[in-house]
Amino acid sequence: MALVVQKYGGSSVQNAERIKRVAERIVASRKAGDDVVAVVSAMGDSTDELLDLAAQVSPLPQPRELDMLLTAGERISMALLAMAINNLGYEARSYTGSQAGVITTSVHGKARIIDVTPGRIRSAVDEGAVAIVAGFQGVAQDTKDITTLGRGGSDTTAVALAAALHADVCEIYTDVDGVFTADPRIVADARRLERVTYEEMLELAACGAKVLNLRSVEYARRERMPIHVRSSYSNKPGTIVSGSMEDTDMEQALITGVAHDRSEAKITVLAVPDEPGAAAAIFNTVADAEINIDMIVQNVSTKGTGKTDISFTLPKDDGPTAMAALQRIQAKTGFDGLLYDDHIGKVSLVGAGMRSHPGVAASFFASIGAAGVNIELISTSEIRVSVVTRDTDLDAAVAAVHNAFDLGGEEEAVVYAGTGR
Amino acid sequence: MALVVQKYGGSSVQNAERIKRVAERIVASRKAGDDVVAVVSAMGDSTDELLDLAAQVSPLPQPRELDMLLTAGERISMALLAMAINNLGYEARSYTGSQAGVITTSVHGKARIIDVTPGRIRSAVDEGAVAIVAGFQGVAQDTKDITTLGRGGSDTTAVALAAALHADVCEIYTDVDGVFTADPRIVADARRLERVTYEEMLELAACGAKVLNLRSVEYARRERMPIHVRSSYSNKPGTIVSGSMEDTDMEQALITGVAHDRSEAKITVLAVPDEPGAAAAIFNTVADAEINIDMIVQNVSTKGTGKTDISFTLPKDDGPTAMAALQRIQAKTGFDGLLYDDHIGKVSLVGAGMRSHPGVAASFFASIGAAGVNIELISTSEIRVSVVTRDTDLDAAVAAVHNAFDLGGEEEAVVYAGTGR
Repeated sequence: MALVVQKYGGSSVQNAERIKRVAERIVASRKAGDDVVAVVSAMGDSTDELLDLAAQVSPLPQPRELDMLLTAGERISMALLAMAINNLGYEARSYTGSQAGVITTSVHGKARIIDVTPGRIRSAVDEGAVAIVAGFQGVAQDTKDITTLGRGGSDTTAVALAAALHADVCEIYTDVDGVFTADPRIVADARRLERVTYEEMLELAACGAKVLNLRSVEYARRERMPIHVRSSYSNKPGTIVSGSMEDTDMEQALITGVAHDRSEAKITVLAVPDEPGAAAAIFNTVADAEINIDMIVQNVSTKGTGKTDISFTLPKDDGPTAMAALQRIQAKTGFDGLLYDDHIGKVSLVGAGMRSHPGVAASFFASIGAAGVNIELISTSEIRVSVVTRDTDLDAAVAAVHNAFDLGGEEEAVVYAGTGR
Repeated sequence: MALVVQKYGGSSVQNAERIKRVAERIVASRKAGDDVVAVVSAMGDSTDELLDLAAQVSPLPQPRELDMLLTAGERISMALLAMAINNLGYEARSYTGSQAGVITTSVHGKARIIDVTPGRIRSAVDEGAVAIVAGFQGVAQDTKDITTLGRGGSDTTAVALAAALHADVCEIYTDVDGVFTADPRIVADARRLERVTYEEMLELAACGAKVLNLRSVEYARRERMPIHVRSSYSNKPGTIVSGSMEDTDMEQALITGVAHDRSEAKITVLAVPDEPGAAAAIFNTVADAEINIDMIVQNVSTKGTGKTDISFTLPKDDGPTAMAALQRIQAKTGFDGLLYDDHIGKVSLVGAGMRSHPGVAASFFASIGAAGVNIELISTSEIRVSVVTRDTDLDAAVAAVHNAFDLGGEEEAVVYAGTGR
């Protein structure tokens, strides 16, 4: 008998009919002899509806109150799921993040999990009940206020809870059949990966693969908790995320897959004085605004001018904040101006075998060039190479790279509705 | 500077526009120098929408999960109200029943408040913030599960919190201008009462006056907490509920008002053996089903038969349960059968002066008779007399009694939308 933590996203519980299907799936696990703890997101569009209400009463809602408001979403879905399971003759009890012992920092809207003390969940499971836990939320250690973990937070809740409960596996149910060599919406013959290492999954998630949230993979890697990515619409085998590159044998594929990302924008700071401290002033300013930047390119100083352009990419959501912060330091730092470009896309090739095959990056650039797509920025890591293109060229670039590295398969990839939080 | 607890029902916060108006009212109290704790119900129809969702996943939802589900309603309204107040430049923080220290029994759906430990609310007020508290909900002392207090529970939350905080007054905002001598929807010249005693208000509430929940008045009486009933749509003076009959002077009006109730049904048990224990068996059965009965009439034993009919009234909602329970004891108790009648109405005349004026009851019966309305059951207390009529005769009976006792006034009564929980 195994202890399984299952996570169901917003699209999996978007209405009563879907909730009843999730209940059947959980009961099937119970019948198979497993103990189940289920982590749920808010129903489908309910988060957007709550945000819309908030906008109607205040242009700039307090983060504390926004968290109080949004956590009503999981409260509704988890109570309904518990009712649906009870209705099938199995006992189920729902718990808020706070009741489940999810202790966080007090940064509303993007709190981080400090500790998980799942005493009540353990008791419920020991008493034979299915425990349903609200994803995405917790309680701040210092203020005792309710917090949310930010986008993808339910994945992190599931992994953290699985680790704290010493579960055998954390199953993440989503709207695709697993992790693919590319987004099946763009590449028709994208192939499902049976198994990927934490490192590969981290790079894929960081590069825009939406199937798993980056923080949840970091958490799973740290705690050595296996993640099983599965579809909530089918019984297909899915993808196991486990093991590190060090453990994998020589037969592992050179390349894992192609990821893409449309969520970033590019800021170019024009004619920055080419002197010590100028770049630091710029990046300190962005960091002080709590914005994570991704790729950075500093051009060679234009001859004789003593000035250089600096470009970097960042989440589109943070664009206005970053622009405002940089405008405030323009006079002091002495740059000429700022350009904002939100029509970019990023294509990344990820593979553990890449580090021992230096030719991979060259083939990657060549395949993009052959597709007639211009490369604007480049960045690399040990097991990844990424480029920025026009957003309109993104699909063509993804398909070209996928084809060039012969990543396709025969298995049909099924794509369902959008993912939740 | 006073500490004021204000309670706003579901219709007062039914949409963003109304929530902003409530925020303005609270800010006006703050500007006038008062500290404010506001208790809110769920927005308008949101409770019914949640109940509808529950019905879609389970025909008989667990009370624990139903409480978890329904408490999402206040979570939404209170967070929005806090945002709206913050947006007006005053600090506000929302708290769940559990966070506000509302400790209850563990009877889901109709928990009773055991204790209120409002440490966080006191701190928020001391720090200059408006505290917004979810009405209708608490946390069970033993199980630590979330509970709800049942219909009208938000009134009780407000009074209990006001008492625990030693507030100066508990203001209940509703959709009428106060407590009236009769329902202004039925009696056009119904007069607003400036002040009523706890005892009078208890009788009015018990007899169907919906402006205040019975349990909240009981709580207020026990704690000697003055209640100020006011309209959330106007700035009219409303009604003060305070003081007991012992304190009132001789000039007090003989009659307080006329209440009516359409929420009851009548069960008649036919041909009950007229012997010791038969009636007890019937009422024990009903009590064991946790049903509160109201009026009871046992007819004189029909000569020679040794059998008698027993009629009693009870809430319509409990009708099916009571009938089923009684059917199960029919054979053993030996009565002939059961009649169920849900087309009854109750008219009550309430007044502290009544106990020293025995002629009042006679005039009451006479006025109803003169209106051509048949009286089916009668019950009396020290300060009240009630009769049951056909439901179709109820409005005529209320108007006739109100007129006979000359209770009308000149002030125009304004009636707004339906009340919340």
